[in-house]
Amino acid sequence: MARRAGRHFLQIPGPTNVPDRVLRAIDFPTIDHRGPEFGVLGKDVLAGMKRVFKSTQGEVVIYPASGTGAWEAALVNTLSTGDRVLMYETGHFATLWQKMAAKLGLEVEFIAADWRRGADPEAIENRLRADADKRIKAVGVVHNETSTGVVSRIADVRRAIDAAGHPALLMVDTISSLASMDYRHDEWGVDVTVAGSQKGLMLPPGLSFNCISPKALAAAKSARLPRSYWAWDEMIANGKTGYFPYTPATNLLYGLAEALKMLDEEGLDAVFARHQRHAEATRRAVRGWGLEVFALEPREYSASLTGVLMPAGHDADRVRKVILEAFDLSLGTGLTKLGGKMFRIGHLGDFNDLTLMGTLAGVEMGLELAGVPVKKDGVQAAMQYLSECAKAPARRAA
Amino acid sequence: MARRAGRHFLQIPGPTNVPDRVLRAIDFPTIDHRGPEFGVLGKDVLAGMKRVFKSTQGEVVIYPASGTGAWEAALVNTLSTGDRVLMYETGHFATLWQKMAAKLGLEVEFIAADWRRGADPEAIENRLRADADKRIKAVGVVHNETSTGVVSRIADVRRAIDAAGHPALLMVDTISSLASMDYRHDEWGVDVTVAGSQKGLMLPPGLSFNCISPKALAAAKSARLPRSYWAWDEMIANGKTGYFPYTPATNLLYGLAEALKMLDEEGLDAVFARHQRHAEATRRAVRGWGLEVFALEPREYSASLTGVLMPAGHDADRVRKVILEAFDLSLGTGLTKLGGKMFRIGHLGDFNDLTLMGTLAGVEMGLELAGVPVKKDGVQAAMQYLSECAKAPARRAA
Amino acid sequence: MARRAGRHFLQIPGPTNVPDRVLRAIDFPTIDHRGPEFGVLGKDVLAGMKRVFKSTQGEVVIYPASGTGAWEAALVNTLSTGDRVLMYETGHFATLWQKMAAKLGLEVEFIAADWRRGADPEAIENRLRADADKRIKAVGVVHNETSTGVVSRIADVRRAIDAAGHPALLMVDTISSLASMDYRHDEWGVDVTVAGSQKGLMLPPGLSFNCISPKALAAAKSARLPRSYWAWDEMIANGKTGYFPYTPATNLLYGLAEALKMLDEEGLDAVFARHQRHAEATRRAVRGWGLEVFALEPREYSASLTGVLMPAGHDADRVRKVILEAFDLSLGTGLTKLGGKMFRIGHLGDFNDLTLMGTLAGVEMGLELAGVPVKKDGVQAAMQYLSECAKAPARRAA
Amino acid sequence: MARRAGRHFLQIPGPTNVPDRVLRAIDFPTIDHRGPEFGVLGKDVLAGMKRVFKSTQGEVVIYPASGTGAWEAALVNTLSTGDRVLMYETGHFATLWQKMAAKLGLEVEFIAADWRRGADPEAIENRLRADADKRIKAVGVVHNETSTGVVSRIADVRRAIDAAGHPALLMVDTISSLASMDYRHDEWGVDVTVAGSQKGLMLPPGLSFNCISPKALAAAKSARLPRSYWAWDEMIANGKTGYFPYTPATNLLYGLAEALKMLDEEGLDAVFARHQRHAEATRRAVRGWGLEVFALEPREYSASLTGVLMPAGHDADRVRKVILEAFDLSLGTGLTKLGGKMFRIGHLGDFNDLTLMGTLAGVEMGLELAGVPVKKDGVQAAMQYLSECAKAPARRAA
Repeated sequence: MARRAGRHFLQIPGPTNVPDRVLRAIDFPTIDHRGPEFGVLGKDVLAGMKRVFKSTQGEVVIYPASGTGAWEAALVNTLSTGDRVLMYETGHFATLWQKMAAKLGLEVEFIAADWRRGADPEAIENRLRADADKRIKAVGVVHNETSTGVVSRIADVRRAIDAAGHPALLMVDTISSLASMDYRHDEWGVDVTVAGSQKGLMLPPGLSFNCISPKALAAAKSARLPRSYWAWDEMIANGKTGYFPYTPATNLLYGLAEALKMLDEEGLDAVFARHQRHAEATRRAVRGWGLEVFALEPREYSASLTGVLMPAGHDADRVRKVILEAFDLSLGTGLTKLGGKMFRIGHLGDFNDLTLMGTLAGVEMGLELAGVPVKKDGVQAAMQYLSECAKAPARRAA
Repeated sequence: MARRAGRHFLQIPGPTNVPDRVLRAIDFPTIDHRGPEFGVLGKDVLAGMKRVFKSTQGEVVIYPASGTGAWEAALVNTLSTGDRVLMYETGHFATLWQKMAAKLGLEVEFIAADWRRGADPEAIENRLRADADKRIKAVGVVHNETSTGVVSRIADVRRAIDAAGHPALLMVDTISSLASMDYRHDEWGVDVTVAGSQKGLMLPPGLSFNCISPKALAAAKSARLPRSYWAWDEMIANGKTGYFPYTPATNLLYGLAEALKMLDEEGLDAVFARHQRHAEATRRAVRGWGLEVFALEPREYSASLTGVLMPAGHDADRVRKVILEAFDLSLGTGLTKLGGKMFRIGHLGDFNDLTLMGTLAGVEMGLELAGVPVKKDGVQAAMQYLSECAKAPARRAA
Repeated sequence: MARRAGRHFLQIPGPTNVPDRVLRAIDFPTIDHRGPEFGVLGKDVLAGMKRVFKSTQGEVVIYPASGTGAWEAALVNTLSTGDRVLMYETGHFATLWQKMAAKLGLEVEFIAADWRRGADPEAIENRLRADADKRIKAVGVVHNETSTGVVSRIADVRRAIDAAGHPALLMVDTISSLASMDYRHDEWGVDVTVAGSQKGLMLPPGLSFNCISPKALAAAKSARLPRSYWAWDEMIANGKTGYFPYTPATNLLYGLAEALKMLDEEGLDAVFARHQRHAEATRRAVRGWGLEVFALEPREYSASLTGVLMPAGHDADRVRKVILEAFDLSLGTGLTKLGGKMFRIGHLGDFNDLTLMGTLAGVEMGLELAGVPVKKDGVQAAMQYLSECAKAPARRAA
Repeated sequence: MARRAGRHFLQIPGPTNVPDRVLRAIDFPTIDHRGPEFGVLGKDVLAGMKRVFKSTQGEVVIYPASGTGAWEAALVNTLSTGDRVLMYETGHFATLWQKMAAKLGLEVEFIAADWRRGADPEAIENRLRADADKRIKAVGVVHNETSTGVVSRIADVRRAIDAAGHPALLMVDTISSLASMDYRHDEWGVDVTVAGSQKGLMLPPGLSFNCISPKALAAAKSARLPRSYWAWDEMIANGKTGYFPYTPATNLLYGLAEALKMLDEEGLDAVFARHQRHAEATRRAVRGWGLEVFALEPREYSASLTGVLMPAGHDADRVRKVILEAFDLSLGTGLTKLGGKMFRIGHLGDFNDLTLMGTLAGVEMGLELAGVPVKKDGVQAAMQYLSECAKAPARRAA
């Protein structure tokens, strides 16, 4: 195969473009994970992750595993076989998570819903109110559905649980939102937050996280699902001194330390504002093409990816293939029931205005190339918006 | 802290010194794990790992996890709550593995034994013969005890199981032996082999492996331990096309592809011979110091690490600290009941004669510096042996 | 200073964006430049460079120096103090080269000319015809003026020299054209070609090259300018075995080996076609903005950079500053007499359609942001052209 | 060729082992050498180099060139065709430098001498006294002869020049001593110091340096040798703001910034003490083998390399070949008249006790393997010395 010149555009909604500083950091020799140098690193990354979970007072554990592992950890640490969990169908990943819960021997109630909307706090409240004998032990919601680009309003879900006076734990998947979109573990009353390294944290995949409230920790004491690799107790106990109960993914932790430094340098609020800007520019582009953003409600728009609906009769995956071949740009596919019907543009992680413009240009040209009848006003609309942002003093401050 | 000049000597028994080619490989941008390029990579590393498991006809799965995860995978895929497993106390890691089995809800029989010897096939045979109603579902043995440097003879364990006419699965931990010492998954009739990336495979930690026999696969069909992340079925199904059911640790897989290439370039037999040479040189050094190799039986000597017993009254950990501070050399500690009584020299992975000599010189000088009464003939004895090897035509061929 | 997210757009006309493969290659340990491994590398890169000079039969030397050094080498190896050289004012770099010639003690005739056009073969022919006693020893022309984006037609210059029946050597600077635009050392009868690493060769700066005809080699025998570092004789003699008379820039040579491999993989003709495509797209963008391409003659358009004239009253350097600050995009400045009047867009090296589109979007938004009255049709025009190219079978073949 | 396991031992007297931090630093994308970020880098490395020249008040220039270029720069900036220079034959590199001077059109007086001793200040004084009409314009001495491991006492040479009341400039080559051995540009009254990147500075080759006294700067005003690439004036003028008159070797400058940081972290005095320690350990090893250190006078021993004389009838290059093949260790060859008669052990740059021990073990085993009749007490003697150093408080302070 002939070499492709220039840099690949990896605009799937994660893994994201890993910045050079992070790649170079993971390219250092592995050290003794029981030696003094490692303890300093371990404490540093744990403290940094607490800042990212919005200065949580809870506990953070870091797994040598991808995000799917952190899903499993959230469940097996807090629940017992046969426990009932309430999950909400926001999309493909919510569906996978509830399937995992079922596989692990939990009894799952899955609130079926329209993938174009986030979790409905009212529906959750109603269900919990109906659960008179409190059989539901946990509520699981995906903050930012990576399969759709729809956000669930976690603070409102918390309020719904409280309004129902229900003791269920609140578990939230932030795999494609953490460090890209505002997320507040403590303030929003989340009990277990699940996160991964390969999106807003700008790392390669291979690390995942649980952020754990005192209530979840207490639940872990009586939870009976078998667990060892994922067990919080030894992770937390070892973490106090910066170490791990078993061999950690040392080189990825080097990268995490660097990524956390970069987030500090940019400032989390600036990071969030940047993602918002790119998301809005992308939506304007989508409308400029005469296409539809998959998310229906503005307050549920994702800042980290945008789902784009195809006109009827046009296969999204063919478009993606054309774009990959013609312009070396990877986009996200439509998953399961959305197969062929949509594609997803990732605009999260280490990303900037001009890389977004290259991406949108690739999509605009690719849609044409694939024979999809679109207007060619997308790139123009995005530029218009980014120009306005560039003029505003707020952005200059950032 | 003042900078230390030169290269750290990482001579713990893993993680090992990751070669530059592997580090540079993991320093490439992460790609789309659903794209065409990834499928090529995935198939390549799976095929390569099968070669390393000595051209197995079985299945191989690769986890984004450290070796501990692959331990768990071996158990949860093949067993059900309350199943009985027979494990053999060869040292700290065998002890940890059986603890894990207990945590996961298995009933563990642990054959207590002297850590200075490998698993005794006869004892296993006897126990299995006594298990008239075949309640024991699996036998778990550590091939190379990382905590002691003692090898268990897996082929003999297999013969023992067969002699007992017992249907139990044979599970073997090769975390610190694979790609350093001769190991034959199919020929030795192993059902599940457990391995990790950070030792003989010369990678950073973060990947682990199961190699699976048809019999183990069949057992997985009826095994009832809850499992999702570790479940073989989807891993194997996806692996046929080079993909993974969830996000893999892409950058570590780049490293794995490079490491497998390097193993091919050197040749597995040459790799094993090299490890044997370094182990023998190390043992001669130990005897040259007037100290004792922890392993008692020559046929059970490890080729990847050597445990060294301290004279009574001398704390091994103080020696390790002195050596780390004076010579920037990390050695393995004595674990649990061996704490302070021994230290371990790792001589596995990407390693050569002169780095071994630097290591042994560091130990010899450090023992003196720490006031341990030793003879100063260790380095000399090791050089003598390496010189002889260098003269022999066999080595030149390698 | 707050961290800037995403990747910097380095669209000056060199140094260019160094691809990861090349960066990683230079990140390997330095080897003994007198050892056997080095000889293999040395021969490899010399052979590869000969291919890049279009399979030259001449000699190639590689200097541990930037391009300026290779200018000096061309002069000091072939000329003697007081020798007359004829140079042609195509822009800033032609001017610098003739200044260097003067500093080195040569008598320079510099044909003053309009920077918006390439060297005029007729003017050169006329001057040479007038040089009845053949005092002019060399003619020096810049193939692709990096300061303007104007190309000189070297084959025509050669014909002009021949038509005048003049024995002067022909020296050509290809610093910003080699490996980006078609260039033929032997076929075009060039005597000394000067090149650098940091443009089409996709390397960091620090290596430079002379490609030398037999006639130039013969001239070197009688040339009397003092020389040692730049002396061809020892370089060529050592090069036969892949070595250097003094310590070479080993790690940059690693990068060169990788870059040459990448050029082979893409194919030089595909590389040239790609540069042509990006240049044409850029010119269409410039016209879409209602601005003027600096180069006047289509047959003299550069494929590696485009000079853009500003409307009167608008400072190009302010625009560049606004663009750098708002969009993290570096553009080339107008040099000396063009200061503030133009900016230059580099589109050479390891580059592709979408990075070009990001670049052009940055320029279009930046022009607006800086208050320059332009039409917003540039990006659209470029996309239109790239889409057409993507549809054409020729491009697919590439 | 089969892959060699483990890390190559590069113990030639330069290029030295480039530390990972430096290699990773040069592996970052090239930036615009005219942009604001570069100016910060440029000023940083120039300031750092002044510290390395022992806080010089003079000027420092950095060339994108190897050390040989900095030799040429020293000459062409200060001298005119036909000027007389006095150089001292300390070895191969002193010989090369004077050859270069002759090639450049200078009239060289070369004081022939025994390569086993450093430059004799008295001989220099006598010659200068005899130069009644002050025809000698410069005295050139190599501080640390890389071909022999013999040091010339520069402070004494300065005193000799002063004692003779002679106005000649003093030029000193510190290519293999700077940042390894104590060197004081200002205090010792040196006019031009010549240095390179690939030895004590721990970088790959490709950068070289001149450190320039006010007197040398004044001489440059009237010096008439043709010069352009090497011309100090523009380099110094541009350097004030951190820039370069032509494209610098940006990525090597990244490495230089990192190397300077590392030298600061270790402390120059600690660096010098470390080199002294390794040199003394090496000499004890040489004597332990019953061989002879090439340098005759203890006060002239090099701290960065040791020349080892072979017993008559044994070819040093065969020994080097045997050692390279058997133990993957590169040693320096005997140059010109020392060919086959000696080999050189480099112990400079980023180096530590155990890598030295690996090196010495390789030499000891290799000598035996090559059939050279030596005693096997070298490694033991070196360990004895290093152990003593490790016990001494002074070293602990370092």
